[in-house]
Amino acid sequence: MENKIKDTAIVGIGSTSFTRKATRSRLGLAVEAIANAIEDAGLKPDDVDGLTSHVFDPTTEREVLNCFGWRNLRFFAETAYGNSSATVGVAAMGVATGQARYAVAFRSISGRYGDGPKADRVHGEHAFYSPFGMRVPAHWVAVIAQRYLYEYKVDPRAFGWISVTCRKHGATNPGAVNYKRPITIEEHQASRMIADPLRLFDCTPNTEGACAVVVASREDARNLRQPPVRILGFVQGTGAETENNTNYNRENILSTDESEYMRREMYEKTGIAATEVDVVQFYDHFTPLVLMGLEAWGFCGRGEGAAFVEGGERITIGGDVPLNTSGGHIGEAYVQSMNHIVDSVRQLRGTAPNQVVGAELSLVASGVNLPGSALMLGKD
Amino acid sequence: MENKIKDTAIVGIGSTSFTRKATRSRLGLAVEAIANAIEDAGLKPDDVDGLTSHVFDPTTEREVLNCFGWRNLRFFAETAYGNSSATVGVAAMGVATGQARYAVAFRSISGRYGDGPKADRVHGEHAFYSPFGMRVPAHWVAVIAQRYLYEYKVDPRAFGWISVTCRKHGATNPGAVNYKRPITIEEHQASRMIADPLRLFDCTPNTEGACAVVVASREDARNLRQPPVRILGFVQGTGAETENNTNYNRENILSTDESEYMRREMYEKTGIAATEVDVVQFYDHFTPLVLMGLEAWGFCGRGEGAAFVEGGERITIGGDVPLNTSGGHIGEAYVQSMNHIVDSVRQLRGTAPNQVVGAELSLVASGVNLPGSALMLGKD
Repeated sequence: MENKIKDTAIVGIGSTSFTRKATRSRLGLAVEAIANAIEDAGLKPDDVDGLTSHVFDPTTEREVLNCFGWRNLRFFAETAYGNSSATVGVAAMGVATGQARYAVAFRSISGRYGDGPKADRVHGEHAFYSPFGMRVPAHWVAVIAQRYLYEYKVDPRAFGWISVTCRKHGATNPGAVNYKRPITIEEHQASRMIADPLRLFDCTPNTEGACAVVVASREDARNLRQPPVRILGFVQGTGAETENNTNYNRENILSTDESEYMRREMYEKTGIAATEVDVVQFYDHFTPLVLMGLEAWGFCGRGEGAAFVEGGERITIGGDVPLNTSGGHIGEAYVQSMNHIVDSVRQLRGTAPNQVVGAELSLVASGVNLPGSALMLGKD
Repeated sequence: MENKIKDTAIVGIGSTSFTRKATRSRLGLAVEAIANAIEDAGLKPDDVDGLTSHVFDPTTEREVLNCFGWRNLRFFAETAYGNSSATVGVAAMGVATGQARYAVAFRSISGRYGDGPKADRVHGEHAFYSPFGMRVPAHWVAVIAQRYLYEYKVDPRAFGWISVTCRKHGATNPGAVNYKRPITIEEHQASRMIADPLRLFDCTPNTEGACAVVVASREDARNLRQPPVRILGFVQGTGAETENNTNYNRENILSTDESEYMRREMYEKTGIAATEVDVVQFYDHFTPLVLMGLEAWGFCGRGEGAAFVEGGERITIGGDVPLNTSGGHIGEAYVQSMNHIVDSVRQLRGTAPNQVVGAELSLVASGVNLPGSALMLGKD
């Protein structure tokens, strides 16, 4: 069937403050972000009749419903894997099929995230990795990053330019945890090693905060307070033999199949090539995967990412591919890309902290090396 | 927006054998059921490009994908709460919006299910119940059942007739764990008390097994092997102040708001009143909730369920409201209503083990007293 998602739009965005300290409850954060998104849309809480969340977010639909005193939720579903594009995409599916009129998608994170599964909860492929000390995402991704350096004879400074750029954008975003805290490439190179070749500044910080968006039909969107931001396309992809950041058994350990499938599918659905966009928001839990994402989505050739990001000029505001314009996870906060989506909406409204002049299209995409999802957002 | 789900259909069904012993892996069960559903549809595994699962099913999309050697999943999402109608409904949303062409929904269960959360995993409202010994679903539901008996001056034998009927249907279904094992109302009354007033035979047995269905567009469905079964409507509902089988804080402890909302919404979406259906498949984890469901969905008046089911004639094959015609959870197997959906499809194809003559509409609905979902399935 044809792409029905394009008849939907993001009509409201909301966030909490972002901090490095974990002091608030996830539920409280979620409710605050959702309330802000509803207010931003010019709606009342009782207008909301759909809610989508992330499987790993312990905040349940019921808890949120009870906090708002909602009488009835007509639609609720969850999405797995790290990227919030799927959570928003499924909300859009709910609206597009008539299951809900105003669907909220949220993500709330507080406290340390990347500690990996507890020993008694290891299952699936992790049973083969955990006993050998590969317990947390940094361990898993380091293997891929090492191979990338070897295969393309790249210096790990290349990863640093991703980090420097995200921190640069966060430094001028008053809502970011790293506001006024830029770093230099030398500081990146001097930061301590976490899992070779991943240094501290290659990893997203653990932060506290939540974000939410309200999705409505394009038609309803036009009668609301904010300029609608259309959801032109929502895609998901896995590639074959996929694992969660441990795709070591693929024929090519550097395979970025999931992103390449999504890139092609996005083009088929929207007629828009990824490289046409004005803003790119890539899931930046670890810098090497962003570099590989730039290649997989066609912004530069395979193995050319290092040269592409060198100096950071091409990937900052005013460059060809403004990347993670709010600071992303590394500069702004780790809200598993729901903050990337919020910033995309601000960019297309023209209200972003680091505005890209005349931005009309924004691509939000998950990292390579695990099942993923992506959104193409556009000015109405 | 209008109901787009009605442009989709179930084109394939598959199950494993059902047993009381837990000897197989959930993944193995899931894969077997999915393979059977794909085969039933006349498709090849590689035709599948969407997969939906239940949040509590530890079988991941990735594991299933790797077992089938799929190259790419274009759509995947999960649903929470017990009923498989939501899992199938979200698969239908995927097809209706063009996210997938052939989406599989599955549920796989092995081993003891209702043991309740482990002490270190209790969260949300259960933190208020577990310390006082209310640790498993039977404890939670018993409170509601007691109140029902008190309020409507009903004898607990009424619950027995639900159980006797489900066992009667299971007894003539060769695939059921209780095949050739009917019970009498006296045996129900003599079965041991689990949580007063719930007796052993008021509770679903723990079983092992999996079921899966393939969803396609109505258009694609017409070119496939089996007569399509349309998904005429998919609804979800919560009511206010909702918890998961512990809705004690509602103004009316016997509230069945979620089902009443869903009944109204189903009528609005499909133009079909619940009472028009030929087959009813209600989530039968505990018999009292089925009785309350019959009332909430309008098959009899509030508090009249006991008289309605007395003797079982009205709710068996040939009666007004043939209920759980495969035996449901109590008679066939506890696959969290995915087996109810599979049996609905058989009924509408005319191939059910306990066939209702001329069945054209089947309603599948979750139990009262927790967030729910329902499907209206119809002959094409």
